[in-house]
Amino acid sequence: MTNGAESLIQTAVAAGLNVCFANPGTTEMPMVRALDDVPGMRAVLCLFEGVATGAADGYARMAEKPGLTLLHLGPGFANGIAYLHDARRARSPIVNLIGDHATWHLDADPPLNSDIESLARPVSAWIRKSLSGEDMAGDLAEAIALASIKPGNIATLIVPHDCQLEAAGNPAQVRAVAHPPHVGEDAIKRAVETLRSGEPAALFLGAYALRERALRAVARIAAATAPGSCKLMCESFPARWERGVGTPIIERLPYFPEPAIAALSPYKSIVLAGARSPVSFFGYPGVPSYFISPQQTTVTLATADEDVEAALEALADALQAPVYAETNSNLQTPPLPTGKLTPETMSAVVAALLPDNAIVMDESNTSMGPFCVMSQSAHRHSYLTQPGGAIGLGLPCATGAAVACPDRTVINLQADGSGMYTVQALWTQAREQLNVKTIICNNASYRILGIELMRTGVKEFGKQAQSMIGLTSPPIDWTGLSKSLGVPAVRVETAEELARELARALAEAGPQLIEAVL
Amino acid sequence: MTNGAESLIQTAVAAGLNVCFANPGTTEMPMVRALDDVPGMRAVLCLFEGVATGAADGYARMAEKPGLTLLHLGPGFANGIAYLHDARRARSPIVNLIGDHATWHLDADPPLNSDIESLARPVSAWIRKSLSGEDMAGDLAEAIALASIKPGNIATLIVPHDCQLEAAGNPAQVRAVAHPPHVGEDAIKRAVETLRSGEPAALFLGAYALRERALRAVARIAAATAPGSCKLMCESFPARWERGVGTPIIERLPYFPEPAIAALSPYKSIVLAGARSPVSFFGYPGVPSYFISPQQTTVTLATADEDVEAALEALADALQAPVYAETNSNLQTPPLPTGKLTPETMSAVVAALLPDNAIVMDESNTSMGPFCVMSQSAHRHSYLTQPGGAIGLGLPCATGAAVACPDRTVINLQADGSGMYTVQALWTQAREQLNVKTIICNNASYRILGIELMRTGVKEFGKQAQSMIGLTSPPIDWTGLSKSLGVPAVRVETAEELARELARALAEAGPQLIEAVL
Repeated sequence: MTNGAESLIQTAVAAGLNVCFANPGTTEMPMVRALDDVPGMRAVLCLFEGVATGAADGYARMAEKPGLTLLHLGPGFANGIAYLHDARRARSPIVNLIGDHATWHLDADPPLNSDIESLARPVSAWIRKSLSGEDMAGDLAEAIALASIKPGNIATLIVPHDCQLEAAGNPAQVRAVAHPPHVGEDAIKRAVETLRSGEPAALFLGAYALRERALRAVARIAAATAPGSCKLMCESFPARWERGVGTPIIERLPYFPEPAIAALSPYKSIVLAGARSPVSFFGYPGVPSYFISPQQTTVTLATADEDVEAALEALADALQAPVYAETNSNLQTPPLPTGKLTPETMSAVVAALLPDNAIVMDESNTSMGPFCVMSQSAHRHSYLTQPGGAIGLGLPCATGAAVACPDRTVINLQADGSGMYTVQALWTQAREQLNVKTIICNNASYRILGIELMRTGVKEFGKQAQSMIGLTSPPIDWTGLSKSLGVPAVRVETAEELARELARALAEAGPQLIEAVL
Repeated sequence: MTNGAESLIQTAVAAGLNVCFANPGTTEMPMVRALDDVPGMRAVLCLFEGVATGAADGYARMAEKPGLTLLHLGPGFANGIAYLHDARRARSPIVNLIGDHATWHLDADPPLNSDIESLARPVSAWIRKSLSGEDMAGDLAEAIALASIKPGNIATLIVPHDCQLEAAGNPAQVRAVAHPPHVGEDAIKRAVETLRSGEPAALFLGAYALRERALRAVARIAAATAPGSCKLMCESFPARWERGVGTPIIERLPYFPEPAIAALSPYKSIVLAGARSPVSFFGYPGVPSYFISPQQTTVTLATADEDVEAALEALADALQAPVYAETNSNLQTPPLPTGKLTPETMSAVVAALLPDNAIVMDESNTSMGPFCVMSQSAHRHSYLTQPGGAIGLGLPCATGAAVACPDRTVINLQADGSGMYTVQALWTQAREQLNVKTIICNNASYRILGIELMRTGVKEFGKQAQSMIGLTSPPIDWTGLSKSLGVPAVRVETAEELARELARALAEAGPQLIEAVL
């Protein structure tokens, strides 16, 4: 007889979900047993829940199907919230399975009891608690269907321990996943008028507008519009951006509001495709929240929740664009630099050595700003960033991306302060022998905070402010840290060393870490 | 002119809060500036928010005043929730300061925006968002007053960035903190009748009933009652328990329900003093939630929220106990063992070498079960455990306890699987040169989960279940991990080596880690 836990795993496997990022506890033991009793599900153990949720995000972005997590009660789930926040902003499809106490035990308010729903609400589009073993399969199928609606949602299913043990029926089938709605004729028409007006305009891209299919349409649109009348721009922090040789050159919006506003200011109209109207990451006194001024016109071609791929294709057709437009077709990489490690030399080394079809997870923050421009005509790659701003996503997200794409190389450009949040991910990379090459940008500080503090008008940091920003005393030995968690590591201090060690790491199998001292 | 951020720090310092466990971001920059502009507040940087909240808990348990945290928006706060959950169960006083976006910027729903209140509610007795710079000092004073009511509460104050920058008035004074209510005469009378009935009874202690003042009353009560009529017992996971030579010998309730029920079953009545009626950590099929059966009588002398110290003194007086009762007055430590490291030999080494007035943070879980009994007549020590069950509290809690008590030695008995959640705490120990000696019990597994899995009836673990429990492939090199974060470390494999290295570590200043391989 099948129990609730088994029916859950069966339902997930039947829906094509065959990887689960897990940190289970006592209340999830029936599901742990079911992992062996039901074939087809691979459980990837993470030593901290933030690794599990961040990996589910990276997996979902690359696999384009829901990342599944298995988490323990409220506190276990809480440890994963920060990267579910990032996943929500990335619009990644994720299904969380959270074990709960047996229903009959809740009245006793046992030590690990807490209000899981209240914790889950800010990061979940859908929350349900299963009421019986019979219900669980159907509940999960509904969660998967909701999560799978493009670009993706987070669905959280809470499964009490007793329900997991109860008799259950057959696994449930995921009903046809709802397609994102098509945009109306009007939206296409207004976009055409804008791009044909002869006035300077920008096409501002986000979400699925930055993936393969949409970018082919974007190239056609660019070919069908006059120079200056359709500047291609994109969000500061795209969830996934297909880039490199053969893809249109798109300007990434700067992070800070002043340069972002300056970048947008030449354009009379901005056509939004899959992106929200861009806003400042933080509110600074005297600086507006929105980067597009009231004097500019905003035209929404498609929101992230609409079928932006079809909308871009319809726009290209309406512009009578060629069926196929070649774009950015010459491979161009920077020469290998020499000398000190700086944001420029590090970026050049990685852009120059980037293998074809790599996945780049970029949480380098202040350390590798020039990389994006330097790599725009380098080998084709998928580029992942951190749309939600909860730092520490890089190592987990790279982990999940590597699980999703075992045949591709993942390069994680990783700031040191952020990396310390989720260093446990290295262990999972070692255990699963994932093809992740991590470059730790060791500037021994939360450099961004130093910049932010200077923005507040501080000329000289006080002793305590300095101590809140500096990751010195003691310095963190990233090479030692990595080796202790099973990932081979080296330390480099020049561009030549970085090039040599990155080339070696790329040639070797499995995870590798390079500590680059800036 | 004072701004809101400065008025906050001034208010905290005036209330005697002079330590803040911090992981600030951009929205907290005015408070970071205020740390230098306002004298008297020591900011302790933690590289992950779970370290900050766990340290605030350890600090609060030892300092008996609120532990203050400084956290960054919803995602930063979320990373600290698990150990706030533990702190809530420990009834520790904690005040969280969370920066938020500028009020005028929220409409733009910037990337890091989230529903902070929904995240905070499950772990907070009090939540407020300040509405102006003028309000902030008064809001914080209210938070501190509420948090400080014995045994303690968690208060969360959300402070928008613009309010931090606004003009503010004088710091606010914390109004007289409410005293926990006295118990009624009836409660004392029923307890006297129970302990004088001649029937077997137990006095079941928790919260402040396990601290110095209450234990003097407990010793008097034990002296005034007939043998067998007042068995002294306590919660499985006390927040803080003063123990060792000179303190009454108290039996700690076992973790698993069957031995816990067996331990309580000889007693016709159980008198609760500062403890809830004990319940099972998890609900197991066929096992009751509550350990005290309906056939037994429960008498509540005082809840954790009532003045349990005064109640125990009143009970002692009512029993006509001597004014002072000597108890457990002979120092007894186990002989130093030899041979393999086992729970028994490890416990014996630590109990034998325990320095006087140490603080023991015990998150050894399955690895050092016998320690509690072996140390009951060892040197006096404060014993901290994990009442909420969110694993990984040990390293942060030991960190905070050491900040609170710089003149005492903190010994952290730490399970390896749990320790991996919050390994970043070692860096803070190194930076602050805290007197923490960590013993990592390296059994290379989540051993408790193996036990729980066997409880489900599994005879032989499947491959995936085994992989969810084993922390091998790769093994974690705790010695390397510790050194890479700045804490000197050694690895030991025998009881002799452990004794030698613990004696050395105790003699040396600052943090030390011993990886004990079981």
